[in-house]
Amino acid sequence: MSITRPRGFRAAGLDAGIKSADAPDLALVVNDGPRDTAAAVFTANRVQAAPVLWSRRAVADGRARAVVLNSGGANACTGPDGFADTHRTAEHLAGVLDVSAQDVLVCSTGLIGERLPMEPLLTGATAAAVQLAAGAEADTAAARAIMTTDSVPKTAEATTGSGVVVGGIAKGAGMLAPQLATMLVVLTTDADVDAEIARTALRTATSTTFDRVDSDACMSTNDTVILLASGASGLTVGVEELTEAVRAVSADLARQLVADAEGAGHDVHVVVRSASTEDAALAVAREIARSNLVKAAIFGNDPNWGRIVAAAGCVSEADAPFDPADLSVHVNGVQVCREGGAHRDRSEVDMTPRETVIEVDLGAGSATGDIWTNDLTHDYVEENSAYSS
Amino acid sequence: MSITRPRGFRAAGLDAGIKSADAPDLALVVNDGPRDTAAAVFTANRVQAAPVLWSRRAVADGRARAVVLNSGGANACTGPDGFADTHRTAEHLAGVLDVSAQDVLVCSTGLIGERLPMEPLLTGATAAAVQLAAGAEADTAAARAIMTTDSVPKTAEATTGSGVVVGGIAKGAGMLAPQLATMLVVLTTDADVDAEIARTALRTATSTTFDRVDSDACMSTNDTVILLASGASGLTVGVEELTEAVRAVSADLARQLVADAEGAGHDVHVVVRSASTEDAALAVAREIARSNLVKAAIFGNDPNWGRIVAAAGCVSEADAPFDPADLSVHVNGVQVCREGGAHRDRSEVDMTPRETVIEVDLGAGSATGDIWTNDLTHDYVEENSAYSS
Repeated sequence: MSITRPRGFRAAGLDAGIKSADAPDLALVVNDGPRDTAAAVFTANRVQAAPVLWSRRAVADGRARAVVLNSGGANACTGPDGFADTHRTAEHLAGVLDVSAQDVLVCSTGLIGERLPMEPLLTGATAAAVQLAAGAEADTAAARAIMTTDSVPKTAEATTGSGVVVGGIAKGAGMLAPQLATMLVVLTTDADVDAEIARTALRTATSTTFDRVDSDACMSTNDTVILLASGASGLTVGVEELTEAVRAVSADLARQLVADAEGAGHDVHVVVRSASTEDAALAVAREIARSNLVKAAIFGNDPNWGRIVAAAGCVSEADAPFDPADLSVHVNGVQVCREGGAHRDRSEVDMTPRETVIEVDLGAGSATGDIWTNDLTHDYVEENSAYSS
Repeated sequence: MSITRPRGFRAAGLDAGIKSADAPDLALVVNDGPRDTAAAVFTANRVQAAPVLWSRRAVADGRARAVVLNSGGANACTGPDGFADTHRTAEHLAGVLDVSAQDVLVCSTGLIGERLPMEPLLTGATAAAVQLAAGAEADTAAARAIMTTDSVPKTAEATTGSGVVVGGIAKGAGMLAPQLATMLVVLTTDADVDAEIARTALRTATSTTFDRVDSDACMSTNDTVILLASGASGLTVGVEELTEAVRAVSADLARQLVADAEGAGHDVHVVVRSASTEDAALAVAREIARSNLVKAAIFGNDPNWGRIVAAAGCVSEADAPFDPADLSVHVNGVQVCREGGAHRDRSEVDMTPRETVIEVDLGAGSATGDIWTNDLTHDYVEENSAYSS
């Protein structure tokens, strides 16, 4: 189970006929209370899809009763008409669920620049409301309905010391997806918390999990992570306890996103140590994670430290102070670069595991930062060139 | 002809046995005066190869008599020993040419992290000094000797109104090269100018030519552009006249670098208009030029404006103020996106030409900026993964 494992939630997922393909494409998650606490984080992209514009406003009061999600269309770059479609979806479900439209959040993923087929979407939303249930079947159905290029549904759950449960579903095929790597995540908890605690827990948890998965150096127009708290456990918990559980579920889901990255051959964990600050470590880690030369070398099972060091050298002194002569690089545990020069032979590195660990030591402090990415493969190029999105 | 077309220069290129392959790998360019004016620009990468460290110092006084260039080894990340090798190369040629070692600039390109084979290099340098000559044959030999993954030698020349000649050779297979896209350029002119004018002309010219070719969002450890002025024409020219000729030769060579990009199927010209400032236009153009999703779509002949708009949206408001609702996108002349939404059908766009033109209008001012890049292809992945560098 996942999103309905915490008490006070029901979910559903079905084929509403939004996708041309015969596949589930509409999911609904409802919070039956007693509380209707909600928090959310959205894409930093300035080009924001209609559902992002709507949900951002709707969740501003820290309350939400339902989240409706659809695959088969991003409803991005669709102008005022696209926004009206999202508004209509919320109004429709508000009527069906007898709640306020302001308490219905909307998420969409799929092609950019095309209107959604509203009749099948609204009909499907009504059907989903009828099918709402708690249990593994409902959770999986919801997780499957938001998949685009994902090969498997992604779910996770965690329980805190005091018995509060957090569950979650996610979609997104990593930064290597044909789509714009849109990531949609719905997290639920039966903790009895207010919006302030929910917001803090969500922001803290996402900053070290979903924010550490590099998405083409570019967030999509639709990325959304929502946390709903029902209070149905009757357990009030502190922000630290809730944050830890939300972080655990988020980390689990983020790792699943990387592992399911379209066309990837390796999951690459870039860890930068001995940095002056965490931001400096992350700046270097991101630069390495975004280097096509590094990513292609890893696809070729080549622990090419020269490309890694050169990528690190592209980060400005202001963003990450370090002396190139102090750089050390380990690839899968083998120190191939020491004091900025060649050390152990690259042939000693075993690149066959799916997970590749690149550790860079800047010798400039004590801060650490890490980024997850994937290698650059033929399948990535195929996925992203052969099919329009 | 190219570098020896301006009066006062001789060049040579030969197989010194530095490369394992049986191919030319050492080039020499000598300025016979009467002037020995020199200027240079180097990589912004903080990890700088030994020849870059040496040449930066040597050219600081605005004077140089010779440039020796080798392929087959970058002499980067080789520490003090690598620097000693470069110093020794300059000292050796200084003896052969009877000039000061401080007047001998050195450039290297090839693998990172390996020492150069000094005996064949020095022997080859002596042989090159003996072979020095002016003429098309010498120019082509020099241009060929600096090639790595380049498929053709790159040369260009221009003559100013008052008869001053500028010539140039370049190597570099664009940002899509297996190597770190190292770009080596030697420009020569017979203008009678001082170092100040040479520096200004070179910096101004490169800022709108070589700097506009995106190299994996990352300059290599060895990038170098050198301008030598012999004064042999006896013609003193103003900075504007020289700049224009140097810019013309640089633009010609830069375009040749893009056209020869390893594994590229399209040359992509990203032009951003109606920006608040040129820097804002360039920030958006670079973001689009660096998007793997945009580059892969172009490989697939898909004028995917959604990916283009989403890439633009990743640039911060501070770096490029604009309203996403004002975005307009033309691909090869067809306006596929208007006011942030779909306009003419993508099927109207002819993507078959090698050159793809992406025009983005920000509707935020009157400044323009452009970047040249290439598409992301299977051959790129193959080149960068199958062979170590």
